[in-house]
Amino acid sequence: MLPLEVLEQASAEMTDWGGGGMSVLEVSHRGKPFVACAAEAEAAMRRVMGIPDDYAVLFLQGGATGQFAAAPMNLTVPGDTIAAINTGAWSKKAIAEAKAQELVVDVIADEAGTTYTTTPAADSLRVPSTAAYLHYTPNETIGGVEFSYTPDPGDIPLVADMSSTILSRPLDVSRFGVIYAGAQKNMGPAGLVVVVVRKDLLDRSRATTPSVLNWTKMAESDSMLNTPPTFGIYLLGLILAWIERNGGQTAMGERNKAKAEALYTAIDNSSFYANPVALDARSWMNVPFTLANPELDSDFLATAQAAGLTNLKGHRSVGGMRASIYNAMPRQGVETLVEFMSEYERTNA
Amino acid sequence: MLPLEVLEQASAEMTDWGGGGMSVLEVSHRGKPFVACAAEAEAAMRRVMGIPDDYAVLFLQGGATGQFAAAPMNLTVPGDTIAAINTGAWSKKAIAEAKAQELVVDVIADEAGTTYTTTPAADSLRVPSTAAYLHYTPNETIGGVEFSYTPDPGDIPLVADMSSTILSRPLDVSRFGVIYAGAQKNMGPAGLVVVVVRKDLLDRSRATTPSVLNWTKMAESDSMLNTPPTFGIYLLGLILAWIERNGGQTAMGERNKAKAEALYTAIDNSSFYANPVALDARSWMNVPFTLANPELDSDFLATAQAAGLTNLKGHRSVGGMRASIYNAMPRQGVETLVEFMSEYERTNA
Repeated sequence: MLPLEVLEQASAEMTDWGGGGMSVLEVSHRGKPFVACAAEAEAAMRRVMGIPDDYAVLFLQGGATGQFAAAPMNLTVPGDTIAAINTGAWSKKAIAEAKAQELVVDVIADEAGTTYTTTPAADSLRVPSTAAYLHYTPNETIGGVEFSYTPDPGDIPLVADMSSTILSRPLDVSRFGVIYAGAQKNMGPAGLVVVVVRKDLLDRSRATTPSVLNWTKMAESDSMLNTPPTFGIYLLGLILAWIERNGGQTAMGERNKAKAEALYTAIDNSSFYANPVALDARSWMNVPFTLANPELDSDFLATAQAAGLTNLKGHRSVGGMRASIYNAMPRQGVETLVEFMSEYERTNA
Repeated sequence: MLPLEVLEQASAEMTDWGGGGMSVLEVSHRGKPFVACAAEAEAAMRRVMGIPDDYAVLFLQGGATGQFAAAPMNLTVPGDTIAAINTGAWSKKAIAEAKAQELVVDVIADEAGTTYTTTPAADSLRVPSTAAYLHYTPNETIGGVEFSYTPDPGDIPLVADMSSTILSRPLDVSRFGVIYAGAQKNMGPAGLVVVVVRKDLLDRSRATTPSVLNWTKMAESDSMLNTPPTFGIYLLGLILAWIERNGGQTAMGERNKAKAEALYTAIDNSSFYANPVALDARSWMNVPFTLANPELDSDFLATAQAAGLTNLKGHRSVGGMRASIYNAMPRQGVETLVEFMSEYERTNA
């Protein structure tokens, strides 16, 4: 979901962007208008997230899945060890891609024992001193499991796949070595991935790293080693402006917390609905829930769809329902869902 | 440049696509509407290009530059030899990325001797039998150099970077092992790259290939191993429909040939303008030209800009002027340029 006013602006500017008579889809990425557009998107990203000057901001392609491979390619040599925390589906994919880069992956915490409904206790994490970095997934979109704290691996760089939490609340970027995030949750369209990397971690890229995934080369070329995903960068700029108009990350965080609490309260106060995730690990972004009677699942989804509540089907790997309530979902949208759930329970319990 | 009617449709559908009340930028890539959209884009690609059933069509990210690395990663093992033809800037980039994948690159033809204003004679090409494939660049966008023939490496797979010629004229796909093309010239927005690969060439991918560049995995998952560049695929579908409404590749080829001939004729009939490329190697897509007096270059460009003729500056590596006349450039656009050039010559010769 994207803010309607952002979509309306993109629509209005589609055939004539910036008064130049051309679409942002048509202009050269090396021309002044687009270079200025990309520079402003980066500046806004730095303002909104408070990104320190000793971090590079890269606009790349290939999504978080591309960065699952890029992180080891840019930070390790074959045979190195990295540490990883496994909290579910996306952690596993990141670990598998890292292993394919001929690494030893030391999984220092694996939440399989709770079927991935928990995060490890902060003081239980032991990162081996030989690890090139620690990788984790702050929010698991499928399981709806989210860290309530930032792991502290000491001097070892912390690398985070923030695809589904970036820009959703205040964040201390200086705690991280690398943050990467596919844009399609809170930042815009699929096809753009933002990488925020501490500059002292550059210059380690393997010679075999494809240039499009090479952080060092991309930092040197302002992400314009090749044609960047221009429309995605343009839309990111519109969305960052929308976030700034609406109070920045602090206001996003307050709103997202209130939305999540409203939905979890409704679920917890009902015996008709349930959420399996530990209280201290519940996601503000993705709220999976089940019905006491799973035979009603398809009727629930169809009735919700008829009421205009779409995209509520749980991921095919877990079933049930899932409400994704990213930044662009207004408080009213969650209240409408809660009212629908209450009414459905009255009718079907 | 994109067809205006395509941009207008994209604008009209930006906030409500397919009547579902959501933007194509918002829908899930695994939902029925988008899966159908991607399937139709592939089907249209197959219809328009006449792609045989024994070829896979992949919609990936990272542009042609990503595929410069992906081709060796998916077709070779370290230590292999590939053959390559060097006709200029893009050939060189492809060769450099292949070398980084620990290959021996046998450059069987290098047009450096003519400062890259020629293509090698078809019957001069000798491809070593040990080569895993032959790579070439059918059209060099910077030099404006284009092959008038398809090289014939016998049983050795032919791999072509068609970023700037795809869909511009009829093509016999069966002559190729692999065709790849960034979308931003003739197919849509930056951020989508289309790969057409003969299926018997799959299953050779190195284990270290990042999944987002792995042709085998992407073919197995219908390019949905991760979130694909949804907006680019949607726009590609609109552009293919526009090509079909306008007579397909045959009509595109006739129109592009006529546009190019009109421009080259104007240049050749003047002593004020010049194009350095050999007659049998002139591009239909990119027409570089110089002024007899290069001190007029900046005035020419400023006067053209004031007359509404934009994007005429030559690539920074070569200077001068360059007219890119891709599919979406109408015949009238070229005639306007020719008239402007004639008038500028009358005023300044």
